[in-house]
Amino acid sequence: MSRPSIDPERHAERMAAKQKIMNERIKAADKEQGVLLVLTGPGKGKSSSGFGMLARALGHGMKVGVVQFIKGAFSTGEEAFFRDLPGVDYHVMGEGYTWDTQDRERDVRAAEAAWAEARRMLADPDYALVLLDELNIALRHGYLDLDAVLDDLQARPAMQHAVVTGRHAPEALIELADTVTEMKVVKHAFKDQGIKAQKGIEL
Amino acid sequence: MSRPSIDPERHAERMAAKQKIMNERIKAADKEQGVLLVLTGPGKGKSSSGFGMLARALGHGMKVGVVQFIKGAFSTGEEAFFRDLPGVDYHVMGEGYTWDTQDRERDVRAAEAAWAEARRMLADPDYALVLLDELNIALRHGYLDLDAVLDDLQARPAMQHAVVTGRHAPEALIELADTVTEMKVVKHAFKDQGIKAQKGIEL
Repeated sequence: MSRPSIDPERHAERMAAKQKIMNERIKAADKEQGVLLVLTGPGKGKSSSGFGMLARALGHGMKVGVVQFIKGAFSTGEEAFFRDLPGVDYHVMGEGYTWDTQDRERDVRAAEAAWAEARRMLADPDYALVLLDELNIALRHGYLDLDAVLDDLQARPAMQHAVVTGRHAPEALIELADTVTEMKVVKHAFKDQGIKAQKGIEL
Repeated sequence: MSRPSIDPERHAERMAAKQKIMNERIKAADKEQGVLLVLTGPGKGKSSSGFGMLARALGHGMKVGVVQFIKGAFSTGEEAFFRDLPGVDYHVMGEGYTWDTQDRERDVRAAEAAWAEARRMLADPDYALVLLDELNIALRHGYLDLDAVLDDLQARPAMQHAVVTGRHAPEALIELADTVTEMKVVKHAFKDQGIKAQKGIEL
């Protein structure tokens, strides 16, 4: 696994731009604005929280986008529920093939194609919220250029919310984010007690 | 605020019953079974995670129940989205009046009425998942009898999932639960930086 790395100059530029945005926000604290939210840590509830926020935004009649960076069994419930709802634009990385860490080139191509979808949503003010589910995993594997991802997140429309989930959020993403929650495991039925993952809760 | 207290004998009985259930589960680890999940801590994402699990269960075609123990502005998005969906039984504590800690008696009555709805769902195997949103807050205020709540949770059908959210989960609930996640604040845009709560993310 190659850890994500960032360019120090682009980092400094992003941080300066963020400082400017934050100062403007503080001046205009009574106005609404988009938030970059990161849900990370090993505890249960990161993706489900992102999907709950999606439901909340849909409840407000907003248009939303989802890109799932890990496909497969863990997301069947959400996908079945949200995929065809009006107002939802739903993409799954590498659809039609199995995530296969034996073929790194293919995984990189799939991640880049998924990011192209994310980038399109992040450039379009019609999307009130963009959920980038398990993006941190793709970053952790080094499948995407972290600087490019951070630049696209920062360049999104002012009113747009972006929610990034997954363990091991890179430090530079945490710095860029407005709100970061770390999910801590207090106890876990399945891991601690050898119980099978449960449909409707885990899957 | 009166802190929740429990009866030591009933606690010991519940723990013995839990031990028995756990032993049976470990023996039958390949079978599906209901999980008691607690989402607590000060970080953002507890309720939204519960609602994401609701969506996931609905995606599997399951029937679900929701009781919200804090009504009002913070849940308008979820309520609008989920309330009238097929397969969703949705109750909000104290509907039609404002939560008013000046009138403790009224709050206790409202909490008890809400628990009666929860209890009905927890006794009915048709509900595959019951979300008890912000129940921990009602317990924290001492509005409900903690022993009665724990007994009802433990007595629910074997296949039923129960999800409890809210800060300050009581220790006895954590002990009874199968899976517990604590949401930790790494940073929070609104509190740290004085930014207004944002519709679609916070509301």
